[in-house]
Amino acid sequence: MQTVADRQTAETLDRADPIAALRDEFFIGDDSIYLDGHSLGRLPSAVRDRLGEMVSREWGVDLVSGWDRWLGWTTEVGDRLGDALLGAGPEQVAVCDNTTVNLFKAASAALQRRSGALVTDAGNFPTDRYVLEGLASSHQVEMRRIDIGFDEGPDPDAIGRAAEGASLVCLSLVDFRSGALAPMAEITEACHRAGALVCWDLSHAVGAVEIDLDATGADLAVGCTYKYVNAGPGSPAFVYVRRDLQREFRQPIWGWFAQREQFVMGPDYDPVAGVGQFLTGTQSVLGLAAVDTAVAVLDKVGIEAIRTKSKALVGFGTAAARALLEPRGFRLGGPQDPEQRGSHMSLHKSDATDICAGLAASGVFGDARPPDLLRFGLAAPYTRFVDVWDAVARTADVLSS
Amino acid sequence: MQTVADRQTAETLDRADPIAALRDEFFIGDDSIYLDGHSLGRLPSAVRDRLGEMVSREWGVDLVSGWDRWLGWTTEVGDRLGDALLGAGPEQVAVCDNTTVNLFKAASAALQRRSGALVTDAGNFPTDRYVLEGLASSHQVEMRRIDIGFDEGPDPDAIGRAAEGASLVCLSLVDFRSGALAPMAEITEACHRAGALVCWDLSHAVGAVEIDLDATGADLAVGCTYKYVNAGPGSPAFVYVRRDLQREFRQPIWGWFAQREQFVMGPDYDPVAGVGQFLTGTQSVLGLAAVDTAVAVLDKVGIEAIRTKSKALVGFGTAAARALLEPRGFRLGGPQDPEQRGSHMSLHKSDATDICAGLAASGVFGDARPPDLLRFGLAAPYTRFVDVWDAVARTADVLSS
Repeated sequence: MQTVADRQTAETLDRADPIAALRDEFFIGDDSIYLDGHSLGRLPSAVRDRLGEMVSREWGVDLVSGWDRWLGWTTEVGDRLGDALLGAGPEQVAVCDNTTVNLFKAASAALQRRSGALVTDAGNFPTDRYVLEGLASSHQVEMRRIDIGFDEGPDPDAIGRAAEGASLVCLSLVDFRSGALAPMAEITEACHRAGALVCWDLSHAVGAVEIDLDATGADLAVGCTYKYVNAGPGSPAFVYVRRDLQREFRQPIWGWFAQREQFVMGPDYDPVAGVGQFLTGTQSVLGLAAVDTAVAVLDKVGIEAIRTKSKALVGFGTAAARALLEPRGFRLGGPQDPEQRGSHMSLHKSDATDICAGLAASGVFGDARPPDLLRFGLAAPYTRFVDVWDAVARTADVLSS
Repeated sequence: MQTVADRQTAETLDRADPIAALRDEFFIGDDSIYLDGHSLGRLPSAVRDRLGEMVSREWGVDLVSGWDRWLGWTTEVGDRLGDALLGAGPEQVAVCDNTTVNLFKAASAALQRRSGALVTDAGNFPTDRYVLEGLASSHQVEMRRIDIGFDEGPDPDAIGRAAEGASLVCLSLVDFRSGALAPMAEITEACHRAGALVCWDLSHAVGAVEIDLDATGADLAVGCTYKYVNAGPGSPAFVYVRRDLQREFRQPIWGWFAQREQFVMGPDYDPVAGVGQFLTGTQSVLGLAAVDTAVAVLDKVGIEAIRTKSKALVGFGTAAARALLEPRGFRLGGPQDPEQRGSHMSLHKSDATDICAGLAASGVFGDARPPDLLRFGLAAPYTRFVDVWDAVARTADVLSS
C-alpha cells in the first residue's frame, strides 16, 4: 500500500500511470472532481457518438429493419460483457431489464428448482433484500438475514453455516457501504458444500474489480451497468446463468423474447434452452448499444490494468485519509487493504451528509448514505491520483472551516 | 367511408388534411413509404434533439445530480402520457420496464387479490398469452383461451360469459393481426358483471385511437411506446392501475423504486400506496425522456385529430384495396368500418411474405405475419393519403409482375 501521501506523490503517480490516457476517452467538462462514479459513471465520448448514430441512423433511417441486427444484441452484448468484465464464457450472460427484475427472475428460478430458505446479508443493497423478502413471502420460505461482517470482510465459514438447508444465498461482491470485496470463490464453495446455490450481485464490482464467474463456480449473477461500466443513467442490467444449470432453471416471466421461434408466434410458450430463457420482452436498443460501447472503452486497457490502478488509487486515498481525516474525527470503514476492497472509500462521521454538501460546493462530488457514511468512488478509468489527494485535502478544509 | 379511390383524390385529401404539418416534426430521409409504424414508429426530430441533450448535458455534465430530476420521471411522464393519450387522470400511470414485465406485474396483482381463471383471446399477441400461461401454471389456475371473434369485431356478451368465475380478462384493445378495435366500455362492463377484472393491452392502440381508461372503468392496462407513440426501439412501456384499486394490489417484484423512503434504505419493504408500487428498479432515463418528448409531439395536435385522420386514411386505404387488391386475390381482414379498426390495414393472401419482400424492393415497407397476413400501418402523424394510394397501387404492380 502507498504510505507517503502528499500532492507531489500524487503527481508522480499520475505521471507513472500506464492507463492515464484512458481518461481522454471520457467527456470531462470542467475541473470539478467527480467521485460518484460508483453511482453514475462518466460519459464516454464513444458512447455519446454511438447513441447519436443509433438515433439518427439506425432508428431514423433503418427504422424497423434495424431489428434484423438488434434482435440478437441482448446475448451478443452479454457475451462481450461476460468476456471482458465477468470471466464468463459465451452464452451465459444476457443484458436486459434492470437489476431488480433480473434478481427476481434469478431467485425465482432457484426457488423453482428447489424450495428452501433465502439467505442474504442484512446490510445488502436494499433492492436485493426487498426482492428476496417478496419471494420468501410468496413462496412461503424462510428469509434469513445474516450479518456477514462486511465491515471487516465477510467470513466464508459463517456464511456456509447460514446456508445450510437454503435454496439460494444472494450477496453483493462489493458491499455498497463498506466497500469490502467478498472472497467470491471461498464463499461460493462454502455455500455449495451446504447445498445452496449462490447468486452474486455485481453492481458495485463490475468494471472495477476482476471477476471470474466461471472459475469460481457461481451459479447466478446480476448487476447494473451504470456505475463503473459507464453505460449511462438507467442503462440495462445483466443476468448470468451458469451453463450447466440453464436447463434446470425456468424463470417465471414468460415472454416472447424467450420464445424458440419468436416470430412464428405459436400458441404455447416454448422457450430456448439457454440464458435466453431469462429474456422477457423488448429491451432498450439504445441501452444495449451504450453497454456494448462502454464495455469496449474499458476493454481498451482491460480490467486487469483497471483493477491495478484502482487498488493504487484506493491505497493512496486511504493513506491520505489516515493522514488528514482520521485526526479530524473520520473513521475509515471496511477493510483497509485495497486487495480486500472494491473501488470506493468509506468514511464515517456523524455529520457526513453536511460535509458531503460542503464538498459539493467546493467542486468535489462524493455521496452520503445514512446514517454517517461519506463515499468517494475512485473510478480508475478517469480518476487521477491528484483528484484523490485534492478531494481528501478539501474534506480536511471543510472540516476546518 | 371514402369510396372514390385514385391518386388525385389522395392528393386532394392531403391538401385538406388539417394535421398535414405534423409530418414535418419527423425525420424522413428519403421517399420510401414507411407503413411499419405499428412495429416501430418514425423518429421525431424533437426526440433526436432531446436525446442528444440528455446524453451530452444531463448525463455528461450534470452527472449524478441529474437524478434529482430523473427520480420522479416514471410517474411524471406517466401522468403526461395518461392525460394526452390514455384518458387517465393523474397518479395512475407509470412508465417503466417493458410490456411483458408490466403485464406480469399487473396480472400477478390481480391473482393475488383474488384467485381464479385467467382469460385471454387465443389470438392475442404472443407475449400476453405466454405471460398469462406462466402465471396460470405457477398459480395453478385455469387458463382460458377463447376465440373472441377479432376478425369480425369481438362480442362483449360472449366475453362476459367466458369471464364467469375468472380473476382477470386480458385483451388487446386493437388486435395486432385483424386491426379490430374492441368495444372497450362494453367488454369491461360485461367482465365486471361476471366478477372479473380487466387488463387492456394498449400496445397497438396508444397514439392511434382515443382511449378513455378512467371513463370505461378499466382496472389495469399495459402497453408499449415504440409503435404509434414513436419513442424509439425498445423504449419503455407503461402500466395503468385504477386509483381505487391501487391499495388492493400488491405486485410481486419488490424493488427499491417502490419503497416509501427510497434512500433511507430501511430494513423492510414498505412500498408507496399508489401506482408507484408497480415500479421495480432503475429505469432508462433516456427512454423516459424519449417518451416524454414523443408524447408532446403527438399532443401538438391531440389524439382526437390524429384519430380522425387515421380513420380517413384507413377508409381511403380500404377503398383502394377493394378496387385494386380484392380483384387480385387479396382478402381484407378485420372489420371494414374504420370506426371499428385501429390504424393498420390487414390484407390476407397466401404469398403475403413474398409480396411484402417485393414491396420492400420497390420502397414500400409494410410487414408480414404468418401465415398469410400483410399489414400496412397507417400512422396518421406522418403518413399521407398519397402514401396509402402508392402503397396499394405498388402492391397491385407486384402482383401483376
